[in-house]
Amino acid sequence: MKGFAMTAPNKVEWIEKEKPKAGPKDAIIKPTALAPCSSDIHTVWEGGLDLQGEIRILGHEAIGIVDSVGSEVKDFKPGDKVIVPAITPNWSAKASQCGFHQHADCLLGGYQFTFVRDGSMSEYFLVNDADANLAIQPDEMSDESALMLTDMVTTGFSGAENANIQIGDNVAVIGIGPVGLNAVAGAELRGAGRIFAVGSRPDCINIAKKYGATDIVNYREGDIVEQILAETNGVGVDAVVLAGGNAETFAQAIQMTKPGSTISNINYFGTQNYKNAGDILPIPRDAWGAGMAHKTVVGGLCPGGRVRMEKLVNVVESGRFDPGLLITHRFKGLEKVEDALYLMKDKPRDLIKPMVKID
Amino acid sequence: MKGFAMTAPNKVEWIEKEKPKAGPKDAIIKPTALAPCSSDIHTVWEGGLDLQGEIRILGHEAIGIVDSVGSEVKDFKPGDKVIVPAITPNWSAKASQCGFHQHADCLLGGYQFTFVRDGSMSEYFLVNDADANLAIQPDEMSDESALMLTDMVTTGFSGAENANIQIGDNVAVIGIGPVGLNAVAGAELRGAGRIFAVGSRPDCINIAKKYGATDIVNYREGDIVEQILAETNGVGVDAVVLAGGNAETFAQAIQMTKPGSTISNINYFGTQNYKNAGDILPIPRDAWGAGMAHKTVVGGLCPGGRVRMEKLVNVVESGRFDPGLLITHRFKGLEKVEDALYLMKDKPRDLIKPMVKID
Amino acid sequence: MKGFAMTAPNKVEWIEKEKPKAGPKDAIIKPTALAPCSSDIHTVWEGGLDLQGEIRILGHEAIGIVDSVGSEVKDFKPGDKVIVPAITPNWSAKASQCGFHQHADCLLGGYQFTFVRDGSMSEYFLVNDADANLAIQPDEMSDESALMLTDMVTTGFSGAENANIQIGDNVAVIGIGPVGLNAVAGAELRGAGRIFAVGSRPDCINIAKKYGATDIVNYREGDIVEQILAETNGVGVDAVVLAGGNAETFAQAIQMTKPGSTISNINYFGTQNYKNAGDILPIPRDAWGAGMAHKTVVGGLCPGGRVRMEKLVNVVESGRFDPGLLITHRFKGLEKVEDALYLMKDKPRDLIKPMVKID
Amino acid sequence: MKGFAMTAPNKVEWIEKEKPKAGPKDAIIKPTALAPCSSDIHTVWEGGLDLQGEIRILGHEAIGIVDSVGSEVKDFKPGDKVIVPAITPNWSAKASQCGFHQHADCLLGGYQFTFVRDGSMSEYFLVNDADANLAIQPDEMSDESALMLTDMVTTGFSGAENANIQIGDNVAVIGIGPVGLNAVAGAELRGAGRIFAVGSRPDCINIAKKYGATDIVNYREGDIVEQILAETNGVGVDAVVLAGGNAETFAQAIQMTKPGSTISNINYFGTQNYKNAGDILPIPRDAWGAGMAHKTVVGGLCPGGRVRMEKLVNVVESGRFDPGLLITHRFKGLEKVEDALYLMKDKPRDLIKPMVKID
Repeated sequence: MKGFAMTAPNKVEWIEKEKPKAGPKDAIIKPTALAPCSSDIHTVWEGGLDLQGEIRILGHEAIGIVDSVGSEVKDFKPGDKVIVPAITPNWSAKASQCGFHQHADCLLGGYQFTFVRDGSMSEYFLVNDADANLAIQPDEMSDESALMLTDMVTTGFSGAENANIQIGDNVAVIGIGPVGLNAVAGAELRGAGRIFAVGSRPDCINIAKKYGATDIVNYREGDIVEQILAETNGVGVDAVVLAGGNAETFAQAIQMTKPGSTISNINYFGTQNYKNAGDILPIPRDAWGAGMAHKTVVGGLCPGGRVRMEKLVNVVESGRFDPGLLITHRFKGLEKVEDALYLMKDKPRDLIKPMVKID
Repeated sequence: MKGFAMTAPNKVEWIEKEKPKAGPKDAIIKPTALAPCSSDIHTVWEGGLDLQGEIRILGHEAIGIVDSVGSEVKDFKPGDKVIVPAITPNWSAKASQCGFHQHADCLLGGYQFTFVRDGSMSEYFLVNDADANLAIQPDEMSDESALMLTDMVTTGFSGAENANIQIGDNVAVIGIGPVGLNAVAGAELRGAGRIFAVGSRPDCINIAKKYGATDIVNYREGDIVEQILAETNGVGVDAVVLAGGNAETFAQAIQMTKPGSTISNINYFGTQNYKNAGDILPIPRDAWGAGMAHKTVVGGLCPGGRVRMEKLVNVVESGRFDPGLLITHRFKGLEKVEDALYLMKDKPRDLIKPMVKID
Repeated sequence: MKGFAMTAPNKVEWIEKEKPKAGPKDAIIKPTALAPCSSDIHTVWEGGLDLQGEIRILGHEAIGIVDSVGSEVKDFKPGDKVIVPAITPNWSAKASQCGFHQHADCLLGGYQFTFVRDGSMSEYFLVNDADANLAIQPDEMSDESALMLTDMVTTGFSGAENANIQIGDNVAVIGIGPVGLNAVAGAELRGAGRIFAVGSRPDCINIAKKYGATDIVNYREGDIVEQILAETNGVGVDAVVLAGGNAETFAQAIQMTKPGSTISNINYFGTQNYKNAGDILPIPRDAWGAGMAHKTVVGGLCPGGRVRMEKLVNVVESGRFDPGLLITHRFKGLEKVEDALYLMKDKPRDLIKPMVKID
Repeated sequence: MKGFAMTAPNKVEWIEKEKPKAGPKDAIIKPTALAPCSSDIHTVWEGGLDLQGEIRILGHEAIGIVDSVGSEVKDFKPGDKVIVPAITPNWSAKASQCGFHQHADCLLGGYQFTFVRDGSMSEYFLVNDADANLAIQPDEMSDESALMLTDMVTTGFSGAENANIQIGDNVAVIGIGPVGLNAVAGAELRGAGRIFAVGSRPDCINIAKKYGATDIVNYREGDIVEQILAETNGVGVDAVVLAGGNAETFAQAIQMTKPGSTISNINYFGTQNYKNAGDILPIPRDAWGAGMAHKTVVGGLCPGGRVRMEKLVNVVESGRFDPGLLITHRFKGLEKVEDALYLMKDKPRDLIKPMVKID
């Protein structure tokens, strides 16, 4: 079968591989829609994963049809329409038992596509522990919405969840690409009062408002810390979700919050982001109260697995939120994942998220 | 000055009292709008408070104009339009230091109106620790909304907050009077998926839907436990907010949840509610897994104070929620608090909440 | 092979069964020490498990030697000395993904011995998902200590953990059998100030003091609520762990706490406990502040699995606590589990916990 | 009266001031024992507080006798022996209502001694809101123990509390001066398994072991990250309490933890600590998983107030812990606070904490 793979650092190409076979607990999925992710870009062009010479098919945002299942799979059968989370951990691992399935077996070990086996940009792909890592796509749910749940929504929401937002809190979301927009939606779902969306692209601003942003902060119109302090009587916000930027932005997040706040990071600080700032993320000493200010810094890979997907499905089905709005570019046919990936790499100004439909 | 008081158990009448004088940290408020509360009913007709012969003016839901302030009040001045929370605790008390200001100095000691001094159904009333217990009513906020924040909203929301709702959780709210409706809104603000609103009155159902209820469960159409289990594939909900009912309803709340759930009570179980069931709230042994099911039962008086009110103002100002919808009956003039109170006592089927405007 | 089984309600006998075979992820264990548990008593004589005619070997407290492992087991090999937790869940289940592995697949589904397959009172027994559900017994750790970790310690500690104890809190532990004694130790490990141990048996009192109890409350010397209120200036304790008693004791736990407290149940309310009180656990309306007192009631089956056992091993190895003190009666030889079980059933006054050594 | 004051940056001297007078809620205290703190050193010689030309008496660690109280003080009277916490906040402030009394009115505003009024190195000193900010020193409690509770113990314990330690967790405490030693004790009180105490001074190591340290890591014997990783099979610890060091140490704390861990800072990063590292605290990008590792960084000023002190008294009275061991140097007479302060400044190798007894 055909798959779109990273064959070497900075190099992607179509390859032929054997169709995978399901072990007892696995499922083989035929994708119906795929999306490339900026993590794929990090993987290929920024050294995000060291595959040690291994050739691996890319892709971890997918929905599809169950092609076959292993002998011990109970809840899914061929023909089921399923949502496949980006994170499909080993739920038995020690980290999973501690509540951190994202790091099952090793740091980021819950992220298995491309990292420990082939990803989803292929005619078929394998999902480990299907009963624990697949969720049904309801008939009435659009492919756009279902596809966005796999990574963008769970990531954005986790940024808001980790930010410990209380009803009526003021929240800033820095960066309003697809992940940041979901953090805006997540902040609204946790009951935020004002939501400051920090960004500049008109299409993103438009959706940020639909997702609950009450204030738009454009970094082209001045220092974002100053703008947010000015809007909050010099007090700062209760929480920040950091969904973009670089080391400097990280420092700004600390500076725009008040004592007793939370700074929740969901930005992947790949090599491009930190080069100008040393290999560190800087906490400004004074804004952190010389260690005394109770500003908590959290951050981590999104949660995955079946239950997470089912909860997100429930949110969409209950009419709380429409993640399908994020899709700005549509492609048709598996072979178009190449175009979609390069689109992600080039990041035209009107891009939020591309989708590749397959059938 | 004139005030509407409980002069003996089961007896209310208008009395004359001296206008209160502000101590150093107090404020004197001239009310602009008042609402009676079912707690006033409990106080007068159900022995909710034992005033030990003391005559006290009723009322704890009020907004108003600052008439005067004590010498140490910094943040409020005569003429300010203010929201007065039902709960105005002593923030220095030991319980407040532990996070339970509702029980400052004694059980329910944060509830000072009528309980430790005169309430707000009067020409003027006193608020202790004004800087800590008042919040500004923004010019653009309706009196209806502002008035509802003082008790109904903070109570309903606290029911949802204590229920530990996670994004996508299924939640049942039992009872959709004014407090239950705010619990519905609160559940939506915490990111619930399906919200089952349990009630039967059409006006309440109508608002429940506006506030985020996805399913209406009418106890006249069958056992509510069975209905909710049927709707959740026999699994039960992740959380229940109990905002009405009696001892039997309490037991049902335990029965409709799954292992690992939370039952959050905001219902005041006055003498009328428990009479048929002994003086206890019954946890069904089997539904509680003989003690092994991890079904957590929480419950308590709503939070009050300035910051709580400011957070709720923020929610309304951010357009998340319109609490003014709860007002179904309007009166004009202080003397009409009597009619409004009897209306609360009689509970006509179309009543959600009355408001008395004063000026 | 030989096993000691429940062959019908109220009936136990020795049976012959085939030695179990390990599936890919399983391990077969040859026990080196066993302990009967009061849950075994509940199972056989109180209808605690409905086995629907199935004959099952009893026992879920065991340590042993790995006899064989399945093809996918990575971390354990024949000859390893292992601790086998009473709770060996399916970590992939939906409830496990929600943090409640105890209820994997169904209420109490994490408890698999006897419930879904044969228990450990046998020449050999099977453990599911060995890599996730076994822990190494260090060479220097006594069998007594290791055996107690499997159920008694994890249960007692979980009572303290769920009680949300803060440093310096006053805690009451009601019932100081083996589980309650571990709750005493757990309360100390969470930083409790005064620990009121409620019990009367001299041997238990002796160990309670060694485990950190500062005060002994003997129910034979007066009402336990009154005694504890008297000792706390009428305020009540910050937390209660309920590790014994009946419906009346449950009510007392609510009555001896202050507003903002937690009542943490680890007692199994089997049929014997509730018969005189209807099939409910009663929350006293007034002590619960008519629903307003913020007294949280929690309770559930103990956590199990590998990581839990490893953490408990760590506590013992670090010298914090000696669970081996609980063993008051020793037997030698597999066939003596019968005597040990009847000892548990008869509960002589000097019994805390029996151990059966095998080899 | 006489007081020992900072009269200009880098300058301390004895001054004469009027004896303070109690406002309605205040108390005037005659100290019986005082301790200088490294915060006093930061204040005078490192620009820790900008007093803007104001002359202020130093000192915030004190126990004493109540000399007089204001008209509204209910729970304390002249002659009472009291413990005075270093943090005596305005409990009505907005930050206090949010659970961060340390930052009442402004960042670090709960720290009032020297910062907003005279400290305790004087014949008499004033405590605001006496009912909320004093605690009784029990007759049987030593002055050494009582004095250590005011700052050293509450700070060290808060480091452990914020570190989210679970029973059996492995914890590193970096820095074992008086605060770090209390963090060791706090880690034990929260149920830690192994406690790695990082330090080199023999007297400190000796007490660290008494307080629960299981492993001593000496930075003179190699890189502390490498030592701790080696001791934990390359996994790292579950939590770190950072109680000393500089920007480099801060980075090391991130490096020695595993995914899903907490780094809890209680070190004051004054100007001396950061000079060589820019004005930032560096989170190493790779050890933080490029933002994906779920390593939470927390930190803040210690909690104070009456209830905190009473809880700590309870811990000592219950025999859990003896803070008096920290006193290595004793002085007699108020005038000796000068010597004691210079001792703190000079930090001889055998110094943990000096005490000045007064009478």
